[in-house]
Amino acid sequence: MTRQQLFQQILQKRSYLCVGLDSDITRIPKHLLKYDDPVFEFNKQIIDATKDYCVAYKPNTAFYESRGSNGWRCLEKTIEYIPDTHFTIADAKRGDIGNTSTQYAKAFFENMNFDSVTVAPYMGIDSVAPFLEFENKWVILLALTSNKGSQDFQYKDLDDEFPLFEKVMRVAQKWSTSENLMYVVGATHPERFKKIREIAPDHFLLVPGVGAQGGDLQKISEYGMNHQVGLLVNSSRSIIFASDGEDFAEVAGEKAKAYQLEMAGILEEKEFSQSTR
Amino acid sequence: MTRQQLFQQILQKRSYLCVGLDSDITRIPKHLLKYDDPVFEFNKQIIDATKDYCVAYKPNTAFYESRGSNGWRCLEKTIEYIPDTHFTIADAKRGDIGNTSTQYAKAFFENMNFDSVTVAPYMGIDSVAPFLEFENKWVILLALTSNKGSQDFQYKDLDDEFPLFEKVMRVAQKWSTSENLMYVVGATHPERFKKIREIAPDHFLLVPGVGAQGGDLQKISEYGMNHQVGLLVNSSRSIIFASDGEDFAEVAGEKAKAYQLEMAGILEEKEFSQSTR
Repeated sequence: MTRQQLFQQILQKRSYLCVGLDSDITRIPKHLLKYDDPVFEFNKQIIDATKDYCVAYKPNTAFYESRGSNGWRCLEKTIEYIPDTHFTIADAKRGDIGNTSTQYAKAFFENMNFDSVTVAPYMGIDSVAPFLEFENKWVILLALTSNKGSQDFQYKDLDDEFPLFEKVMRVAQKWSTSENLMYVVGATHPERFKKIREIAPDHFLLVPGVGAQGGDLQKISEYGMNHQVGLLVNSSRSIIFASDGEDFAEVAGEKAKAYQLEMAGILEEKEFSQSTR
Repeated sequence: MTRQQLFQQILQKRSYLCVGLDSDITRIPKHLLKYDDPVFEFNKQIIDATKDYCVAYKPNTAFYESRGSNGWRCLEKTIEYIPDTHFTIADAKRGDIGNTSTQYAKAFFENMNFDSVTVAPYMGIDSVAPFLEFENKWVILLALTSNKGSQDFQYKDLDDEFPLFEKVMRVAQKWSTSENLMYVVGATHPERFKKIREIAPDHFLLVPGVGAQGGDLQKISEYGMNHQVGLLVNSSRSIIFASDGEDFAEVAGEKAKAYQLEMAGILEEKEFSQSTR
C-alpha cells in the first residue's frame, strides 16, 4: 500500500486506528478453545467486528511464535484474512546483519505479504536497508518506544548532541523517504511529538501505547498530526480483550468504534475532508 | 546448561566453537532438494559431522522464518536433534515491551528448549528482564555487533561518557550475573576486547564474524579470553557452506575440526587443562 492510498483510507473511514492483534491464547474467551485454531477464530471475529473502524492491523509476532509452528501457521492465515483495504504491520522488531535482514524481509513481505514490518535500529543502516529494497513495502523503525525501559538508552544524549531516539531518526531520514519509512513513537511521550515533527514532518508515525499503556489520543493527535494525518494510533489489549465473554467481538467492535468516533471528531476539527489532498 | 557445564564442555572438547546454522535453502547442496525438508536434512548432516568439534549451535531464526510455518517446524526439529551436550542459541535478536518479551521467551525456552536467545537492548530493561526469569536459560545481549552499521550508533558516545555499546554493557551488568547473561561482541572489533573485559571480566561473550566476515580467531582469543575461557566463537557460512557438493558435511566437519585444532592450541598455550576449575 502506498502512502497516498493509506491517506485515502484514513479519509474514507474517518479513522487512523490500528488494531493490535496481540492474540494471547491464555486471554481469549474460553468458548473458543473448542476450535482447531482458537486464535485464528478469535482474530477472524475481531477483524470482522472492527474492520469498519480501523485502517490497519498489527499482529505482534511474539504471540504467534510462542505457539510454535502452529502459531506461525495461524499468523499466515490471519494475514491472508485481513482485507486488502487495510494496511498490515508485522510487529516483529527484527534487525540483523544484511544477509539475515533480507531473510526476515522475505518472511514478512514475500511469504506473508505484510505491507510493513517493525525494525530495531541498534545494528545500523545495513540491518535496515534490506527491508527498504522491497517495492511498496515499509519499514517502521523503532524510535521512541512506549515502555519504561525507553529511559535506559533512548532518552540519553548521543554524541553530546541529541537523545539516541532523535539521533536514530535524524540518521534514518537519510536512509529513505516518507514513502516507505515510518517511525514508532510511543503514546506515552506526547511532549516529544513537537520535536519529532521537526525532524520528520512528512513521515507517518506508528503510535502504540494508547489504552492499556495509558497514552492520550487527544494529546498525540494535537502534537503529532501532519498534513496527511501522519498517524497510525494503535490499541491492542483495550480493544481485543475488552470482554472475555461470548460477546468479545461485539464489545471489541464497540471499543474500536469509540476510538473511530473520537478520531473522526479530531479529523473534523483539523479540517480533513474526503476531498483533502 | 549452567556456566560451569559449558566450561566443562569446552575443556573436554578442547574447543569453544559455535557453529551457526544459517541454513539458507538457496545455498544448500542441490542433491538435498529431493528430501521432504531439505534444510532439516542439511542441518542433521552438518550436526553429525561437526558435533565433536564444537560446543554450541546457533540457528539463525531468519533463515527458518523466511520459509514460513514449514521453516518454523524445521527449526523445531533442528533444536530437538542437537545433542544435549551442546549449548543452543536461538539467534533471534528479539526484544519488546515486557508482556511481549515474555511470549518470545516462551517461544524459545519452553516451546523449543533453547538454552539461550540473542536479545536487542534498544528498548531497555523491561524488554530484557522477562528472558532472565527462566531458570537455567540465558540472555545473550547485543553489545557490539560485527557489521558495518555498528558504527552508526553503537560506537557513538552516550551521555558524554561511554560509547553506546559500552553503556549497554555497563547498565546490563546491573540486570543480572554471568550465570545467565552473555554479550554479543563481533570478531571484527578485536581492539575493543580489552575494554570489554574490564567491564565484564566474568561473562561469556558470543563472538560472531570469524570466517566470512573476516574476524581473526587468534586476536580475539588473545584479548577476549578470561579465567573460564569465556568465549563462544561462532562461524556460520565458512563452515556450513564450505562445499556445495555431496561432500558438504565432510568438508564442514574438516573446517570445524581445523577451528577446533587451532582452539586446542590456544587453550594449551593459555594452560587450560581438563582439571582447570
